[in-house]
Amino acid sequence: MKKYVYAFDIGGTTVKIGLFNMDGLLVDKWEIKTDTTDNGKHIVNDIYQAISNADVSLSEVYGYGFGVPGPVVDNIVLTCVNLGWVNYDVEKEFSEYTDNHRIYVENDANVAALGEAFKGAAQFYASSAMITVGTGIGGGLIVDHKVVSGVNGAAGEIGHMKINFDDTGYQCNCGKTGCLETVTSATAIHRLCRQYLEETDHPSSLRNVDKPSAKLIFDEAKMGDEIGLQVVETVSKYLGFACHVLSVTTNPSIIVIGGGVSKSGSFFIDKIQHYFEQFSFAPVFDTKIVAAELGNDAGIYGAASLALQHD
Amino acid sequence: MKKYVYAFDIGGTTVKIGLFNMDGLLVDKWEIKTDTTDNGKHIVNDIYQAISNADVSLSEVYGYGFGVPGPVVDNIVLTCVNLGWVNYDVEKEFSEYTDNHRIYVENDANVAALGEAFKGAAQFYASSAMITVGTGIGGGLIVDHKVVSGVNGAAGEIGHMKINFDDTGYQCNCGKTGCLETVTSATAIHRLCRQYLEETDHPSSLRNVDKPSAKLIFDEAKMGDEIGLQVVETVSKYLGFACHVLSVTTNPSIIVIGGGVSKSGSFFIDKIQHYFEQFSFAPVFDTKIVAAELGNDAGIYGAASLALQHD
Repeated sequence: MKKYVYAFDIGGTTVKIGLFNMDGLLVDKWEIKTDTTDNGKHIVNDIYQAISNADVSLSEVYGYGFGVPGPVVDNIVLTCVNLGWVNYDVEKEFSEYTDNHRIYVENDANVAALGEAFKGAAQFYASSAMITVGTGIGGGLIVDHKVVSGVNGAAGEIGHMKINFDDTGYQCNCGKTGCLETVTSATAIHRLCRQYLEETDHPSSLRNVDKPSAKLIFDEAKMGDEIGLQVVETVSKYLGFACHVLSVTTNPSIIVIGGGVSKSGSFFIDKIQHYFEQFSFAPVFDTKIVAAELGNDAGIYGAASLALQHD
Repeated sequence: MKKYVYAFDIGGTTVKIGLFNMDGLLVDKWEIKTDTTDNGKHIVNDIYQAISNADVSLSEVYGYGFGVPGPVVDNIVLTCVNLGWVNYDVEKEFSEYTDNHRIYVENDANVAALGEAFKGAAQFYASSAMITVGTGIGGGLIVDHKVVSGVNGAAGEIGHMKINFDDTGYQCNCGKTGCLETVTSATAIHRLCRQYLEETDHPSSLRNVDKPSAKLIFDEAKMGDEIGLQVVETVSKYLGFACHVLSVTTNPSIIVIGGGVSKSGSFFIDKIQHYFEQFSFAPVFDTKIVAAELGNDAGIYGAASLALQHD
């Protein structure tokens, strides 16, 4: 009898493994190292070894969900710089180890959005979106409980929306300039802080810190630091614009903000909501903007949902 | 035996009626006047009278699809200024006349997008988008062959995306300023032309025309008129940006440009594609941007598809 699904959130340094029951409750979780040698060819085998050594018999497993850090179309990972994968067929590779063909693969930002829609901040809504502020900006769209992948696996890639029309702006990892990611990611938050510190001589506790993290900058802002507040205001404005854009495209019920800085709570979220309303027309004013609830587990919850929702 | 579906595209002045067979082929079409007196309460009855007087027996009709000029959620028209409808339950009203409960209602821009996806320019693609340049800017998103409506019926309302961060820009009908619609609609095209004529004294055949239509401005541009070209360039840039935004949200295979000016063909479409690529990151470069094929019939094709795709 099938009692469980396995969920894998594959990152550049670790693979998070989650064992869920058929109600989507997390039963067990652990991590293994991601072996990126030989273009990541050992990763899928390592995952199989990890679960075949676990207590649960694989004959009790209903299906497997994978989140991977790159675009995915029809279970094929198009490219995954961190892992060395190019046009990598995870389903086929994993099928070497099991007769169970319920194997589903999606982009990590998309599974995080699905995770929050499944058991997190967006769980009572059919349509939602998620923006995750990390080293980059992740994004995912859920419509009628399903991930929107896009023909190139680029759906939800709101981090690569240009936020201006000219060619000014910072260089983005994607090859273009002036993407949302260049002004709202953790890297950008750090740079904005440095810039604002240089532009004025306002007193700021951040002047005494060598490389303030995004979290520290937000914490100082919360305590009234003027430079920190300036950074939070800028980031909130751009994220408010991103929420506005989502509301005139898929018009979700709720937009979930994830990543470390989202833990600043209403201080940050209220500012994003403020700018969202400034940009948006009245019909979408009741769009909820909220902080993520599942933290780093969003990915495994989403991967579990992938495995459970296909029947 | 069920042989047909009826499709209705309700506008402020006429209702387009299409009779389709079960393969989605248009068998007959005609129009009736839209009676907007008494807050549009006669419209549904007028439609029923029109089809009950037609040759086809209503017992042969499989279902009914409606496109209406306002936001729709779960078959309820939230508001429809042109018709006088507020929270109007078309399904319930039409059910007064028939025992057939296959009655489906959607926003007109969304059914136009669905029409192009069903039998027009996007017919070979599961996911597409449409932007229609008319008095306003209409937009619709199709994901996996289905309309994305949005929780407020505002999905695809790309015309109300702000195209700048400050509060400059022209007043939009939606109450905000600086929406895409204010710089790309037929009205905006006319205004841009007047503005460029005033700003310079370049020779232009458009100087001799009292109120040049969007079509005339595009026709003159095509023949090399400098002011006309300037207008087309601006409009193309903003529409290219809109396509870029669609590609990082739902990432469709194909984006269909509709409305009178889309008949200018590759002259116009190529410019939009040029700007789209300038704004966008490499993974979405193969997004197709094409002119609409169904013209004013897109709405009835989409409404027919609504009625056919539910079983």
